[in-house]
Amino acid sequence: MNDIKLMNRAADNIRILAASMVEKAKSGHPGGAMGGADFVNVLFSEFLVYDPQNPRWEGRDRFFLDPGHMSPMLYSVLALTGKFTMDELKDFRQWGSVTPGHPEVNVDRGIENTSGPLGQGHTYAVGAAIAAKFLQARLGKEVMDQTIYAYISDGGIQEEISQGAGRVAGTLGLDNLIMFYDANNIQLSTKVDEVDNENVALKYESWGWKVISIDGNDADAIRQALKEAKAEKERPTLIIGTTVMGKGALGADHSSYENKVSTHGQPLSAAGVSMEDTIKNLGGDPENPFVIFPEVEALYAKRKAELNELMAEKKAVKAAWAEAHPDLAVKMANWFAGKIPEIDWAGIQQKANQATRAASATVLGVLASSVENMICASADLSNSDKTDGFLKKTHAFVKGDFSGAFFQAGVAELTMACICIGMSLHGGVIAACGTFFVFSDYMKPALRMAALMEQPVKFIWTHDAFRVGEDGPTHQPVEQEAQVRLLEKLKNHKGQNSMLVLRPADGAETTVAWKMAMENMSTPTALILSRQNITDLPAKGNRYQEALGAEKGAYILNEDANPDVTLIASGSEVSTLVDGAALLRADGVKVRIVSVPSEGLFRAQPKDYQYSVIKPDGKNFALTAGLPVSMESLVGFNGRVWGMNSFGYSAPYKVLDEKLGFTGQNVYKQVKELLAE
Amino acid sequence: MNDIKLMNRAADNIRILAASMVEKAKSGHPGGAMGGADFVNVLFSEFLVYDPQNPRWEGRDRFFLDPGHMSPMLYSVLALTGKFTMDELKDFRQWGSVTPGHPEVNVDRGIENTSGPLGQGHTYAVGAAIAAKFLQARLGKEVMDQTIYAYISDGGIQEEISQGAGRVAGTLGLDNLIMFYDANNIQLSTKVDEVDNENVALKYESWGWKVISIDGNDADAIRQALKEAKAEKERPTLIIGTTVMGKGALGADHSSYENKVSTHGQPLSAAGVSMEDTIKNLGGDPENPFVIFPEVEALYAKRKAELNELMAEKKAVKAAWAEAHPDLAVKMANWFAGKIPEIDWAGIQQKANQATRAASATVLGVLASSVENMICASADLSNSDKTDGFLKKTHAFVKGDFSGAFFQAGVAELTMACICIGMSLHGGVIAACGTFFVFSDYMKPALRMAALMEQPVKFIWTHDAFRVGEDGPTHQPVEQEAQVRLLEKLKNHKGQNSMLVLRPADGAETTVAWKMAMENMSTPTALILSRQNITDLPAKGNRYQEALGAEKGAYILNEDANPDVTLIASGSEVSTLVDGAALLRADGVKVRIVSVPSEGLFRAQPKDYQYSVIKPDGKNFALTAGLPVSMESLVGFNGRVWGMNSFGYSAPYKVLDEKLGFTGQNVYKQVKELLAE
Repeated sequence: MNDIKLMNRAADNIRILAASMVEKAKSGHPGGAMGGADFVNVLFSEFLVYDPQNPRWEGRDRFFLDPGHMSPMLYSVLALTGKFTMDELKDFRQWGSVTPGHPEVNVDRGIENTSGPLGQGHTYAVGAAIAAKFLQARLGKEVMDQTIYAYISDGGIQEEISQGAGRVAGTLGLDNLIMFYDANNIQLSTKVDEVDNENVALKYESWGWKVISIDGNDADAIRQALKEAKAEKERPTLIIGTTVMGKGALGADHSSYENKVSTHGQPLSAAGVSMEDTIKNLGGDPENPFVIFPEVEALYAKRKAELNELMAEKKAVKAAWAEAHPDLAVKMANWFAGKIPEIDWAGIQQKANQATRAASATVLGVLASSVENMICASADLSNSDKTDGFLKKTHAFVKGDFSGAFFQAGVAELTMACICIGMSLHGGVIAACGTFFVFSDYMKPALRMAALMEQPVKFIWTHDAFRVGEDGPTHQPVEQEAQVRLLEKLKNHKGQNSMLVLRPADGAETTVAWKMAMENMSTPTALILSRQNITDLPAKGNRYQEALGAEKGAYILNEDANPDVTLIASGSEVSTLVDGAALLRADGVKVRIVSVPSEGLFRAQPKDYQYSVIKPDGKNFALTAGLPVSMESLVGFNGRVWGMNSFGYSAPYKVLDEKLGFTGQNVYKQVKELLAE
Repeated sequence: MNDIKLMNRAADNIRILAASMVEKAKSGHPGGAMGGADFVNVLFSEFLVYDPQNPRWEGRDRFFLDPGHMSPMLYSVLALTGKFTMDELKDFRQWGSVTPGHPEVNVDRGIENTSGPLGQGHTYAVGAAIAAKFLQARLGKEVMDQTIYAYISDGGIQEEISQGAGRVAGTLGLDNLIMFYDANNIQLSTKVDEVDNENVALKYESWGWKVISIDGNDADAIRQALKEAKAEKERPTLIIGTTVMGKGALGADHSSYENKVSTHGQPLSAAGVSMEDTIKNLGGDPENPFVIFPEVEALYAKRKAELNELMAEKKAVKAAWAEAHPDLAVKMANWFAGKIPEIDWAGIQQKANQATRAASATVLGVLASSVENMICASADLSNSDKTDGFLKKTHAFVKGDFSGAFFQAGVAELTMACICIGMSLHGGVIAACGTFFVFSDYMKPALRMAALMEQPVKFIWTHDAFRVGEDGPTHQPVEQEAQVRLLEKLKNHKGQNSMLVLRPADGAETTVAWKMAMENMSTPTALILSRQNITDLPAKGNRYQEALGAEKGAYILNEDANPDVTLIASGSEVSTLVDGAALLRADGVKVRIVSVPSEGLFRAQPKDYQYSVIKPDGKNFALTAGLPVSMESLVGFNGRVWGMNSFGYSAPYKVLDEKLGFTGQNVYKQVKELLAE
C-alpha cells in the first residue's frame, strides 16, 4: 500500500470509528469528525511529539481541540495511538465512561483540555504557546522545545474570542503555535456562507499570522503545510483546510451525503445515511465497525517506535542539560510539580489603611521576586487593578522576548482568562490575571471551564463595589459577588468547591488571601479587592496572625462577652461594621464582629466551628455592597441584611456611602431596629 | 473666520469643556475626549440629521458611542446643540446629575445608549442599522432613511465582540452604518502598539467593510470621509481617524502633553498638565472655561436652522406618504409606540406532553405571523433552540434583502445579544434571540446592560438543565438559573425588577410565559426552556386558564385540604413533583404543588398572596435542576431542597434522572424524611 493510500485508509478508519460511536450512542456529532479525520491522522502519525511511555512528559507537543463536539474524532485517533480501547469507544456518552460527549481534560489519555464552548479551546492553545515560550526562555530549548497545535472549526472562527486569540498570537509572534482550521462550510443551522462572508485568511494575516490554504482531506497537502508551519520562525501559522463534512457518507440509494448540515449534530442514520453503505464505502465491515485495520495498527506502531527512539535522544539531551544546569533541573521539577517556594507571608509589610488592591500590589511585588514561574496578566488595567505591583519587578512579554513575566492582554477579558487557563493547562507556570470586578461578567464562560478543569488560575478583581464612585452603574459591581460565589457552591468532579472566592477586609487579610490563593493548586481562586482605602481592622495582637482566621472562610474579628448581636461582612464593609460597633458599644450593646472572606470555604468547615462563629438563630446583621442575597443565608431567619438593590449611581464614593447607607450610623440604626424586633 | 478655522475653534470649544468637566469633577477621562472632538464636531454640525424639536423623531440618524468614558466629549458636543446647559456640564459625575460618569441612555438629551463596557456600544449600532433596514423594507425609504453612526476607540477595537459586529455588518452589507475609529494609539495601561500590532484596516476589509484612513483631527478630511461613506451603497464604512490624545494639552513649561497615557483616565492637572496654559492654548479663558464661544454658538444655530428646514421637507414627505399608505402610517405609529397586536393566546394549540422549547416554537410561529415588527435571532442553533418555529414563517436577512424577519447571528452569543439590544434601542421593532441556556454565560455583560437600559429584548434559552444529557457538563447549565435570577433581584432605575425570568413548567405555561414576555415592554424577559419532553401538568379545568397563575410568579397547581407539605419547583421539575405527589398521596400524605416560573415576580406580589402560596415556616420541599440556592429562600427554614451541586455528567438524561435523584421516587423519599424531622 503506498503512502497516500495508507494515510487515507487510516483516516477512513477514524471516520468509521467516529461515525459508529455516534451511531451506537444514538447521540453526537459525526459529520465534522469525518471531515477532520485526515488532519488528525497526519498530525498524530507523523508530527505530534510525545512520549508513549509518559503522557505527562513536560516537553511534549500539545494538541488543543476547540470544537469539543468533534470528540469522536479525537477519541478515535487516540484509540489508534493506544490511549482508548474499542470498548471505551463503544461506551461513548454513557454514564461513567471515559468517553463523555465533550472531551474532559485527561492528560494520561492524551486530552489536554475540556472543550465544548466554542472558541475557548484554541485560546487555551495560545496560552500554552506563551507558557512554552516563557519556560524556554528560563530553562532552555534543550528541554522546552514543544510545538502547540490547535484545531478550530467554523464555529470557533466565528466566536468573538478568536479575535483576541488571533491578535495576541500575532502580536507576540508565537511561531510555536500551529492551528488547523477545519473549514467545511457547515455549521449547526446553516451553511457558513449564509452567515459569514469574511475572508478568514486575510483576517489572520491582519493579525500577523502566516496562512496556508489547502485541501484539508489531502494527506500530502496536510503534511506539506505542517512542514512549512514547523519551519516558520516569526509567526503563528493558520492552516486553512477545506474539508468535506460527512466525508464518505452515502444514502441507501448510494447518493452522496457529504456536505450536509443534517450530518452535523445527529447520528448519520437519523440524517438519512445508510451506515452499512457508508462503512463499506470507507472500507470497513458494517457488522463489526469497531476495529483498527491491521495496516493502520502498523502505521501507528511504526510511529510509536519512532517516538520511543526520539525520546531516548531527548532523555539523553535532558540528562546532559541537567548535569550542566542542576539548579535549572530542580526548578523545572518543582515548577511542573506545582510546588511554590517558601514565602515569608508574615514578613510582608503592608502600609496602614490602604486599599486592598494596593495591599495586593505589595504581595504581587513579593511574588514577582520570589515565584520565578509566575505569570501575571492584566486586561489593560495594570495601573488600576494594581497588577503593576508585579509588573514593576519584571517586564511585559514582547515578540521574541519572553524573559519578562507580565502579559499585557489588551482590552479582552475573556481572552485573557482563557490564555491564563491555557498557561495553566500547559503546566510549569502559575498564572494570575487582573481586571475590574464588574468585567468578571465577560470572564464567566472561562471561569466555569477553569472550575470544571480544576485549574489553579488566580483571578484578581478590583474596584469591587459601588465605591468605584463616579464611573457609575456600568462600572459598579452589585450582583457579581453573589454570581461568582455560585461557583463556590458548585462542586467539581472531585467534590470540592469548584472555586475559592476571597474578599479580604484589609491589608493583612489581603496578604492571607494571597497566601491561600498561592497554596490552592486544586481549583481557581478569585481575589475581590477594593478601589478605595480601608481602615485597618483592629487587632488584639498581631493583625496578620489574627487575619489567618480567613483560612477558615470566616472568623471572629472581635467580640464582647455574651454578644447581643453578630455583625457580619466581607471586604471593606467589615471596617464599616467596626464603625457601627463603636456606636453600638457606646450605647451598651454587646457586639461580635465576623469577617467572612469566603462563605463557600466557611460552609466547608465543621458545623460546630460554623455555629461558634455565627449562631443560625441568633440576631445577626450583615452588611454587603452586593445584593442582599450574598449574605441572606449567613444571617439566618432572625437576621437582617443591608445591601444594594440598585445598579448604583455616578457620584463620589463618600457621597454614595451616605446616600446608600454604608456608614457606621446606619449600621447602628439597623442593628437597633433588629434588636427591637 | 474661514471654515476650517471655525471648525477648529468649535472642536477646541469641546476640548475646553470636556477637560474642564473632568477637572471640576476631579475624576474622569479628558485625553480621549480632546482627541475625538474634531470628529463629533463635524458630525453634529454638518451631518447628523435629527429634529431639533422632537428628539424622538423615528427617522433621526442615531449616534452610538462605544467608549463611554469619553462622555465629556459627548456631553460637550450635545451642549453645543442645546441639549445640556453649562451648569449640567459643571455637575459632571455628581449625585443626581444628568451627566453621569458614563452616559446613560436618554433619547431626549441625544444619548442613544448607555456605554461603558467597551465593544458593546458599536454593536448596538449594528443592531440599529439592521432595524433601520428592516423598517425601511416595510415602511419605505420616505420615512425610514436614517444613517447609523458609531464611534469606537482602541479598546473597543480590541474587545472580542468587535469581531462579531464587524462580521455581521459586513456580511449583511449594512451601508447605512458609518463608524469612526478614534485611533490615538493610547490605551489605559500602555500605548496600543505594545499590545496590538494588527492591521485594523485589513481586518475590516476582510469582513467586507469599506475603509477610509484619515487624520482624525482634520475637519476637512473628516468631512470628505463622511461624504464618501454616505455615498457608499454596498458596505458599512470604517473611518480610521488617527487622533491626538490630549490634543492641545500643555505643561506649565509649555511643553506638549499630547499623546500621553497619563491623560487617559485622570484630570489633566493630575497628569501634570497646566489647565491655565492648556485652556489659553485652546483659545479659552481659564477663569471661565464653561462657555460656548459666540462663533461656535452661531455655527450650531446655523445647523439648527438647516435641520428645521430639512425637517419641514421631511414632514411634508411623511404626510404625503401617510396619505398614500394609511395602513403603513398606523403600523409605524404602533410599532414605535411599542404596541403589540391582539393575540389570541388562549387559542394557541399546544401539542400534548412536549418539550417547552417545542411549545415555544408553536408560539413563535404565531408571533411570526401576527407581530409584523418582530425580529427573531439565533446563534446558529435555530433548529435546536426551536426559534425555527419563527424562521419557518419567514426567512433570514441577507445582504440587500431585509424583507425577512430572522437574523442568523452565527456562533456569537454576546454579539447577538448586543445586536438585539441595538435593534430595541433603535425602536420600532421587537427583538428576540435564542441559544442554549449554558451559553447565557457569554451574554451576561449584555444582559446587565439590557437590564440597566430597560430594553424589552426577549431571551430564549433552551436546554435548560442536566437533561441535555449526553452532551455532558460543558453543556449542562447548573448555576445559570440562580445567576440570571440575580437580575430579578436587582432593581433598575425605576425600582422595578431589572429583568423578568420565566421558566415555564409545561406547554400551557410556555404560552403564558410568552404572553408575559410580549406584554413586558419595560424590562428584558428571559424564557428558560427544556430540551426534553414534559408531561403536561394536571388541571381541574382549562390548563391554559390555570397556567395564567404564572402571571403572579408562582401559583398553586393543585392541593389537598390542609396539606402536610408544599412541593415547589419550576420548569420540568414540576412534573416530577406531580409524580412524587402521586406516591405521597397514595401513602396518605396531603400535598400542595406550587409552580414558580419567576421567583422575582412572585416576591413582588403582596405578602398575603405570597404566604397563601408558600408558608414561610411550613414544611416545604423544593426540587431544582439548578443549584439548591435557587430555591433555598423559597422553602424557608423548615424546608428542604433537592438540587444539583455538580457540573453534571455525560449520559442519557433518563439515566441522569435516576442517578441524580430527579424522580418521583426520590421526591417521595425526601418528603417523607422532611416530614419525619
